[in-house]
Amino acid sequence: MLGRARRIGMSSETTPLNRPSPDLIDTLKEIVGARYALTGEEDQQPYLHEWRGRYHGVTPVVLRPGSVDEVSRILAAANAARVGIVPQSGNTGLVGGQIPPSDGSQIVVSLNRLDRIRSVDLSTASMTCEAGVPLAKAREAAEAADRLFPLSLPSEGTCCIGGNLATNAGGANVLAYGMARQLTLGIEAVLADGRVWDGLSTLRKDNTGYDLKDLIAGSEGTLAVITAATLRLLPRPKAQAVAFAGLGSLDAVKGFFELASASFGPALTGFEFLSARTIEFVLAHTPDARSPLQRPYAWSVLLEVSSHAQGEAEAVQALETVLGVAIDKGLVQDAAVAQSLTQAQAIWRLRESASEAQKPEGGSIKHDISVPVGRIPEFVARADAAVEAVCPGARPVAFGHFGDGNVHYNVSQPPGMDKGKYLAMWDGVSQAVHEIVNALDGSISAEHGIGVMKRDALKRVKSSVELDMMRRIKQALDPNGILNPGKLL
Amino acid sequence: MLGRARRIGMSSETTPLNRPSPDLIDTLKEIVGARYALTGEEDQQPYLHEWRGRYHGVTPVVLRPGSVDEVSRILAAANAARVGIVPQSGNTGLVGGQIPPSDGSQIVVSLNRLDRIRSVDLSTASMTCEAGVPLAKAREAAEAADRLFPLSLPSEGTCCIGGNLATNAGGANVLAYGMARQLTLGIEAVLADGRVWDGLSTLRKDNTGYDLKDLIAGSEGTLAVITAATLRLLPRPKAQAVAFAGLGSLDAVKGFFELASASFGPALTGFEFLSARTIEFVLAHTPDARSPLQRPYAWSVLLEVSSHAQGEAEAVQALETVLGVAIDKGLVQDAAVAQSLTQAQAIWRLRESASEAQKPEGGSIKHDISVPVGRIPEFVARADAAVEAVCPGARPVAFGHFGDGNVHYNVSQPPGMDKGKYLAMWDGVSQAVHEIVNALDGSISAEHGIGVMKRDALKRVKSSVELDMMRRIKQALDPNGILNPGKLL
Repeated sequence: MLGRARRIGMSSETTPLNRPSPDLIDTLKEIVGARYALTGEEDQQPYLHEWRGRYHGVTPVVLRPGSVDEVSRILAAANAARVGIVPQSGNTGLVGGQIPPSDGSQIVVSLNRLDRIRSVDLSTASMTCEAGVPLAKAREAAEAADRLFPLSLPSEGTCCIGGNLATNAGGANVLAYGMARQLTLGIEAVLADGRVWDGLSTLRKDNTGYDLKDLIAGSEGTLAVITAATLRLLPRPKAQAVAFAGLGSLDAVKGFFELASASFGPALTGFEFLSARTIEFVLAHTPDARSPLQRPYAWSVLLEVSSHAQGEAEAVQALETVLGVAIDKGLVQDAAVAQSLTQAQAIWRLRESASEAQKPEGGSIKHDISVPVGRIPEFVARADAAVEAVCPGARPVAFGHFGDGNVHYNVSQPPGMDKGKYLAMWDGVSQAVHEIVNALDGSISAEHGIGVMKRDALKRVKSSVELDMMRRIKQALDPNGILNPGKLL
Repeated sequence: MLGRARRIGMSSETTPLNRPSPDLIDTLKEIVGARYALTGEEDQQPYLHEWRGRYHGVTPVVLRPGSVDEVSRILAAANAARVGIVPQSGNTGLVGGQIPPSDGSQIVVSLNRLDRIRSVDLSTASMTCEAGVPLAKAREAAEAADRLFPLSLPSEGTCCIGGNLATNAGGANVLAYGMARQLTLGIEAVLADGRVWDGLSTLRKDNTGYDLKDLIAGSEGTLAVITAATLRLLPRPKAQAVAFAGLGSLDAVKGFFELASASFGPALTGFEFLSARTIEFVLAHTPDARSPLQRPYAWSVLLEVSSHAQGEAEAVQALETVLGVAIDKGLVQDAAVAQSLTQAQAIWRLRESASEAQKPEGGSIKHDISVPVGRIPEFVARADAAVEAVCPGARPVAFGHFGDGNVHYNVSQPPGMDKGKYLAMWDGVSQAVHEIVNALDGSISAEHGIGVMKRDALKRVKSSVELDMMRRIKQALDPNGILNPGKLL
């Protein structure tokens, strides 16, 4: 069944839950009002399918509450009835965490009507957004106030703050600004029993007790339902400079990263890397894409620096100086510095098109892994060999956020092979790759989370002590196990 | 009894624990060996008194385990016997969290023999330090590898990594680099039942499950005993520039901070502020201290910028340019830029002497609060008025980390008043100050933690939902309640 949509089965470990009774469904409908309780097949469609088409679910009703109070009453009722709830915001997750199981036993609670930006406050350098605010809208609100909210994802037009926080989203700006957790000052969430935790805060420093904010963030809807968050606003950089460089090996990329990191410190806001095959696919399948370099290189690097003190011309000059040093040291073979915003955007588009450009090449087995930064060259070399052993002719497409140690290690099928047959090898290929990740002290999910997709893999890579700690916390905060059952743990 | 040392009583809410039996004590002594089980009064002294002299405890034995395995066996035995354990590393905490109660019912476990730096690894930009490594030693190890470990505290010669993490320590570098949590990649800790959680990691990105690292960090020894941590190493800045500025009001300080923040972005690594009285005390009571400004100002600011791209001369020039703008705007009245390392250190010494310089002025009622950055002026104005109402003639000494919203709002006694009589007003003064903190959505402990000192206050300021979440987590990870009983919760 691989290659087609996977149906999400019930977890064998979930606390026994009840199927929603007609009475409960009526109660829930009353809470949100008939208009916002979707039961028709067509109405439900946007909430039941994961956008890459891997996961499809079934639910008796999609609830679209319009207030925190309604979310609270939904959870209280579901908890009393011991019925599972699947929280969802933008439905862009890549690991099936936001999709209900196919047995129709769980209720989808969409947060997409909680879409108010409650405040943008320069005096506290923060803004408070509800869970259903699309990331792009949050970024625009920051920009309108002449501030930066750095979280940036290819799906930002659709994905929402609630899901961004629930999955501790990463993206291209992590290097300088951190993941979603680091950009969040406070969280408002509804607990399993319906109580509202008001953890909104605009404070930079607060050492009064356990870090509940970062526990709820990244818990993929299994500990609480996030309804709003206070997000950090940063000063906007005065100038940015972007370059695209060609290098001969991953060791050279590593050396170049060390040089750039030492030269720019926190001003290095982007250091993305792409393999020759990644660029080849991008150039072949992306309209209007062209490389600023004259020939292909084994590895390409997109470098971005942001300056608060310097103007554009000085930033470009500083970037050129460091590129000159890198070329003199034999790390970089050729490089182009964007001379205009248009050129800079064209370079960023090469990187942002990497995922889409793999589709025309057939089936793709995808990994979102991280290893210690210095071990990326070893990881890629070993993974390439392992993949070739499992599926000769398969074509690794490696790219990602070098400075975070985060490799999107995707593997396109051998040309001409049957797509279904290739995708049936998913588990074998993945296990081979994840074994190398483990051997290098890496992570099998750098930024996408666990969801359903990596739930079994998690048990293989985490110690029993750590799994037990997580289960105890889950049990403490959601004793009936109604929050996103069968996900993550 | 205020003004003298406070004895720490047993908590009324702790799960009933046993007093350590002679058998248990023998077992524990055997685990660490007689030499490292301190029972003599003189041997125990350094472990039983908090350095400001406010907290004194009693314990039948101070254990000094020499390995993680010994810590594990100690906790397993104490947990089986349901006896309380007080973890301690450098014993520099300011809120009594590391001191046992005075009834002799709990065992002190000092981590100070776990003092190995296990690794300094440039390829992963990290180092792994055991809990008993003094902060200064960790910083030196980073420096020896030409890297920066930014956590910096006045007590860094004595305080240790274990305590730094257990309390999520802050300090003067938080503005640019974050608190201890943000500087930590992974933690190794022993759970209440003796199991060892190996959460050491060198990864920048890892979205595989709950954020246990940040839950254990900052939990003040109540959820696990930290034995080691993987810490981030950053590139060292190429140049730093330091200035000292005189300003007429806190609103001007706020405007100046906004200007500096926008001008330097992440290169602004220090923005400390001190009231006129703070400077007055520092100049009066610190040998060789002198102000680089010609006359006193209502408020002084210490500004530090760190540059990776620029050299020293350029960094100084950039700082002078921004100071010029601030003077033109009427924000800053006068400023001096350090022209040498010696001058820079002399300016930093003014700030670092602030705590010590209060001692000769008699009793001091201390607060470590934070408010949203923009509300500092309002906080100080209202707190000054409230303090004057409670104790006419008391002298507020306000200083701290402006950019973090963190005010060390200390209040020296009225001149000539009896010190004991003044300190007996502690709770009244503190409650008045904390009420204003709450009204401004602030925190009663920005960086020192809760310990014993603020345990009752915590109950006043936290919602019942949040306290319940914390208690459930405590119960989940330490069901017998043996870890640092009576602290924090």
